[in-house]
Amino acid sequence: MKIKKAAIFFLLLILVNNTFANDGYKLWLQYLPFENKAVSDYYRDYLEHITIAGESATQKVIQKEFEIASEGFFGHHIHPVFSKTTGANLIWVLKTHDLPADTKSKLGPKLDEIKEEGYWLKSFQGKIIITAKTDIGLLYGTFAFLKAIQTREKLENLDLLENPKIQKRLLNHWDNLNRTVERGYAGFSIWNWHRLPMHIDQQYIDYARANASIGINGTSITNVNANALVLTPEYLEKSAAIADAFRPYGIKIYLTARFNAPMILDSLPTADPLDPAVQAWWKNKTEEIYSYIPDFGGFLVKADSEGQPGPHNYGRTQADGANMLADAVKPFGGIVMWRAFVYNEKTPTDRIKQAYDEFKPLDGKFRDNVIVQVKNGPLDFQPREPFHPLFGAMPKTPLMMEFQITKEYLGQETHWVNLATMWQEVLQSDTYAKGKGSTVGKVIDGSLHGYPLTGIAGVANTGTDRNWTGHPTAQADWYAFGKLAWNPDSNIDDIAEDWLKMTFTNDAEFVKTSSEIMLQSHEILVNYMTPMGLHHIMARSHHWGPGPWVTGGGREDWTATYYHKASVDGIGFDRTDKGSNALAQYHPEWKKIWGNADKIPLEHLLWFHRVSWDKKLNTGNTLWTEMALRYQKGVEGARWMQTQWLGLEGKIDEERFEHISSFLKIQVAEAEWWRDSCLLYFQQFSKMSLPAGVEKPKYDLNYYVNFKRNFVPGI
Amino acid sequence: MKIKKAAIFFLLLILVNNTFANDGYKLWLQYLPFENKAVSDYYRDYLEHITIAGESATQKVIQKEFEIASEGFFGHHIHPVFSKTTGANLIWVLKTHDLPADTKSKLGPKLDEIKEEGYWLKSFQGKIIITAKTDIGLLYGTFAFLKAIQTREKLENLDLLENPKIQKRLLNHWDNLNRTVERGYAGFSIWNWHRLPMHIDQQYIDYARANASIGINGTSITNVNANALVLTPEYLEKSAAIADAFRPYGIKIYLTARFNAPMILDSLPTADPLDPAVQAWWKNKTEEIYSYIPDFGGFLVKADSEGQPGPHNYGRTQADGANMLADAVKPFGGIVMWRAFVYNEKTPTDRIKQAYDEFKPLDGKFRDNVIVQVKNGPLDFQPREPFHPLFGAMPKTPLMMEFQITKEYLGQETHWVNLATMWQEVLQSDTYAKGKGSTVGKVIDGSLHGYPLTGIAGVANTGTDRNWTGHPTAQADWYAFGKLAWNPDSNIDDIAEDWLKMTFTNDAEFVKTSSEIMLQSHEILVNYMTPMGLHHIMARSHHWGPGPWVTGGGREDWTATYYHKASVDGIGFDRTDKGSNALAQYHPEWKKIWGNADKIPLEHLLWFHRVSWDKKLNTGNTLWTEMALRYQKGVEGARWMQTQWLGLEGKIDEERFEHISSFLKIQVAEAEWWRDSCLLYFQQFSKMSLPAGVEKPKYDLNYYVNFKRNFVPGI
Repeated sequence: MKIKKAAIFFLLLILVNNTFANDGYKLWLQYLPFENKAVSDYYRDYLEHITIAGESATQKVIQKEFEIASEGFFGHHIHPVFSKTTGANLIWVLKTHDLPADTKSKLGPKLDEIKEEGYWLKSFQGKIIITAKTDIGLLYGTFAFLKAIQTREKLENLDLLENPKIQKRLLNHWDNLNRTVERGYAGFSIWNWHRLPMHIDQQYIDYARANASIGINGTSITNVNANALVLTPEYLEKSAAIADAFRPYGIKIYLTARFNAPMILDSLPTADPLDPAVQAWWKNKTEEIYSYIPDFGGFLVKADSEGQPGPHNYGRTQADGANMLADAVKPFGGIVMWRAFVYNEKTPTDRIKQAYDEFKPLDGKFRDNVIVQVKNGPLDFQPREPFHPLFGAMPKTPLMMEFQITKEYLGQETHWVNLATMWQEVLQSDTYAKGKGSTVGKVIDGSLHGYPLTGIAGVANTGTDRNWTGHPTAQADWYAFGKLAWNPDSNIDDIAEDWLKMTFTNDAEFVKTSSEIMLQSHEILVNYMTPMGLHHIMARSHHWGPGPWVTGGGREDWTATYYHKASVDGIGFDRTDKGSNALAQYHPEWKKIWGNADKIPLEHLLWFHRVSWDKKLNTGNTLWTEMALRYQKGVEGARWMQTQWLGLEGKIDEERFEHISSFLKIQVAEAEWWRDSCLLYFQQFSKMSLPAGVEKPKYDLNYYVNFKRNFVPGI
Repeated sequence: MKIKKAAIFFLLLILVNNTFANDGYKLWLQYLPFENKAVSDYYRDYLEHITIAGESATQKVIQKEFEIASEGFFGHHIHPVFSKTTGANLIWVLKTHDLPADTKSKLGPKLDEIKEEGYWLKSFQGKIIITAKTDIGLLYGTFAFLKAIQTREKLENLDLLENPKIQKRLLNHWDNLNRTVERGYAGFSIWNWHRLPMHIDQQYIDYARANASIGINGTSITNVNANALVLTPEYLEKSAAIADAFRPYGIKIYLTARFNAPMILDSLPTADPLDPAVQAWWKNKTEEIYSYIPDFGGFLVKADSEGQPGPHNYGRTQADGANMLADAVKPFGGIVMWRAFVYNEKTPTDRIKQAYDEFKPLDGKFRDNVIVQVKNGPLDFQPREPFHPLFGAMPKTPLMMEFQITKEYLGQETHWVNLATMWQEVLQSDTYAKGKGSTVGKVIDGSLHGYPLTGIAGVANTGTDRNWTGHPTAQADWYAFGKLAWNPDSNIDDIAEDWLKMTFTNDAEFVKTSSEIMLQSHEILVNYMTPMGLHHIMARSHHWGPGPWVTGGGREDWTATYYHKASVDGIGFDRTDKGSNALAQYHPEWKKIWGNADKIPLEHLLWFHRVSWDKKLNTGNTLWTEMALRYQKGVEGARWMQTQWLGLEGKIDEERFEHISSFLKIQVAEAEWWRDSCLLYFQQFSKMSLPAGVEKPKYDLNYYVNFKRNFVPGI
């Protein structure tokens, strides 16, 4: 064995991070080789012999994951040996009822704290025990254990009992059947419908692995702007094949239901949810779906919004619509996720008020297998919004969170921005619904109102790009979403560091510098795009780049001028009781904080208030000066990110380093574009000059207004 | 060094082919680890020290390729050391004028046989000399040398002097600016226009490497159904960035020119090629293009065909159109590739005759920088067509070949069919233009008519699929296209074997079995799709699957019934002098071979003749029986391919093995679909029962006629 160890030694001497090619496909499951022999030996002792008692599909997946990890960690030198009995093995992957009796009794009552999907990672008498009540718990525990190795934790101290705080942890794919992805910036849909059901692409398996590794247990694979075809046998057969592939990973399939599908597919004269024929149609259709997919998760519905049909077409409520579908899936254990993103241009009120106005009166009127899916803010995934006022306002109706992992309004494919920062801001926001500490996180984990059903959804950022997510760093958003879905109180600094270590390297300088970039990136982006509560000033339709001048065109609520209302008098949307009074949808505590233009934290100023250009702010600057300085600060922040990153050359593989470097070049250029065009546009109204320290714009306003690019992705 | 060798030994003991994951992205440049220490040591002695004299961009690329190859062959253990002087190095990569004087004189006059892009690989006094006149020659020589290692050639015997036989060796991408690919079955376009010019994706580099490795020296990156936007600064800037990335690899960029671009982009009232304002517009536009791309290759034009505008709109000839563009690019050394695929539904003659009728009278009327691009057959890339009658008929006008690498009519993404077999059939076809032996290959390599300009184009099969080509085996078609473009007389058996070795493994059984599959695959496919000269009986529009019943719909020449003309009287298109007389477009020798329905080889029978169902063929069968047996034989062939392949499990990585296995499952199912539906359809007319040995169809004709799938790729 001496020579073998020598072989390993030499293998490990080489810093494999400095290879040419790493396209990032392996995400945070890189299982990179260890940095030296000592580290390698330490973990090798554990990984050589592993106990797995059963032979379920999930247990086979666990075994395979250990094999993949070993191949990554050690090259082809170490092949873990698996056995069903414990023997002298140092890793036991055993369900609690499979643990040896003496071990079980020594582990004691804490074992009972493990819930359905939970696990316990426990260092015990020199061994590592990965135990759970279910197969899926074992898989989650296995990934947690491999993460501990990837992040170089000492295994002797392992004692990690984890249960997910939210039940339904989903990705939502806005993927169309023609493989375009609405608001997708990483290429096209990973679902290759044409090859299904006979060909199961390896990418589906790797997608399931990645999701299971972060605890995601469901996925809605079709666009919420739904095509009724997904409910036909042609597509059900294909969805069933995907469901079969995902099942061992604990991931259920959900489908989007087009509300008027009975009319489209079977020529019913109506889709009225109270019509018995329509109800029967959905019951039959649901039965048919379950005949293909016995553990089908349920429906996700966008209704009465942006052209989608819905119960309003028949004078019915959102509850009427949701309940009809809920009754259909109920016998099979399915649920209905009904989106609260309901608004239209005909309602003569502030767009951001409409969801609350619509849903608040329906609290308690939904079936128990309905959960209302609410975007994090009341508008539409802006770089910064206050939390959605429905959170805390629906004690009798389970609400789930909808985050957008894909960056429709946040630079799309080429900007590095760590979304976890923004999500944490929302999750930690206090609704005051039951007094101080009634955070949004506690609403959605069910603890505040005792929701029997809890959920969270992230609009996926995956696509055919070789690294899944377009920007290599956008993988971090997928990862962080999973972690926050498991536990909304997770520490986002830890999430960033873990992700960096697992994805790139454990090099301390790399991790420190990169995590600093990540944690500051959101504030930087807000500054160069939409500082001080500005919102929806992106270009029309594709939302790429600045468009504060966007106006007219049929739907006022889709223009920038509707939201910023800039004029010579000032700028901002008055949402106090002197304006739209959207503020009243929040708990009165928030009126104290946000209601006064002199006291409101500046990051929300123009969201709630209309302010004159020369108003003195508590920073000592006028509004105009403060805005200009913040845009400048954003640009400088982007440049700082670039400088920091370029200093890390050589720490990781060439390919990903260069990829991120060239995207940072674009990010800096686009930050300048945002600053220059927005300031030139608003300067028309402020009629004030740029303060010292703010760089002169490269072009005139006319240039920016007329700048057009064809075939911008994502629409 | 002893321990180091031990390390390598152990590394090499492991059969790395048996890894889990190989997505095929590395194509035939896998540089897989050696199968044992002896083999490794043998090549290692050479690869450790390499002489490269210069520092041009291409020479840096050569150095990088050696590094990539070493990393693949040896893992991270061997890093080649490069020096500018020869010293004791065993590999010299030197231009002829950089060779040491004594070496040069010993190598003698053979050095002068090396042409512009050629190279000489020569084992000389224990060293390997890779020499050439140009940087690109050196790069081609390097790839040839690395191929010798990949295919386990003995280096002592190396003496390979190669010059390309065709000058312009191009891929044609039918890629749209929205990233859909017309007739593309491997996902979407690899050109990510939105991220250009600032982000150069690693895939562009790897695309250039792959092409350079097989001698391709140009690429037309936009669809022949052209969008005029590609000629605007927005896109020229992006194309220029691609051109910059490709330049070190010897690959020039070509663009498709929409004939009415002057009208679309600058509102000219006409696009008449004889109008001075139009001519001036193209001259200016060309100057602008060259200001972005100094070595721009030229234009590729589809005119007067399938809705594309062209000179016919102004009563001008194809020569008028081509010459106008040729004059514009002439000062810069550019060329015009003018497609002969001109036809329309209003001309009351057999569609396949139109190109000849149009172009033959124009022979000699084109500028010297025009080359007419002719599809291999007179129809449209059918599984089997006779060669195009223009070959041999245009002695005064250079003709280039257009092959379709993407498999529009040959099973598209999921069928394994080796296109080289079909291409060889065409290239070796005798035009008799200058007597026996006047092959199509000699027409296009220029030797028959002394063309000063020669070229060949392949419609690319690349896309965003992780393996580039959808079907792992479709990589072989890309590879073979390059090899046949370099030398149309290349041996396709060798091409198949080399490709298998470089792509998968040198395992003898694997190579033998797989190359048998490859070499038989084309005949098998022809049998289950279009035996005996049947053609264009694919489904409407997307051309996926059978559609012999396709009729009506406005364009007769786009229907199946136009081509097979099946009735109770018989089947087939009479193209003798009693019919359309397309046969007369060929040399009279062919009339002897093809003109007699009793003597014509059966593979072209129904292409040229109309035959009654009960006609006795020289096989002893009636036409109906023969057709049915051939369909059956095709299905059995597909099953044989599947069985052969499944026997190779364990010889290569799991991922690609499974991918091909599942596609073979689809291929067998679709072969049965073809057989069953075509025989049921034709049986309506033959009114004869299926002969013994032909399996009963699974469904009735009605099922097949009504079988529809949505969102079939490639349109």
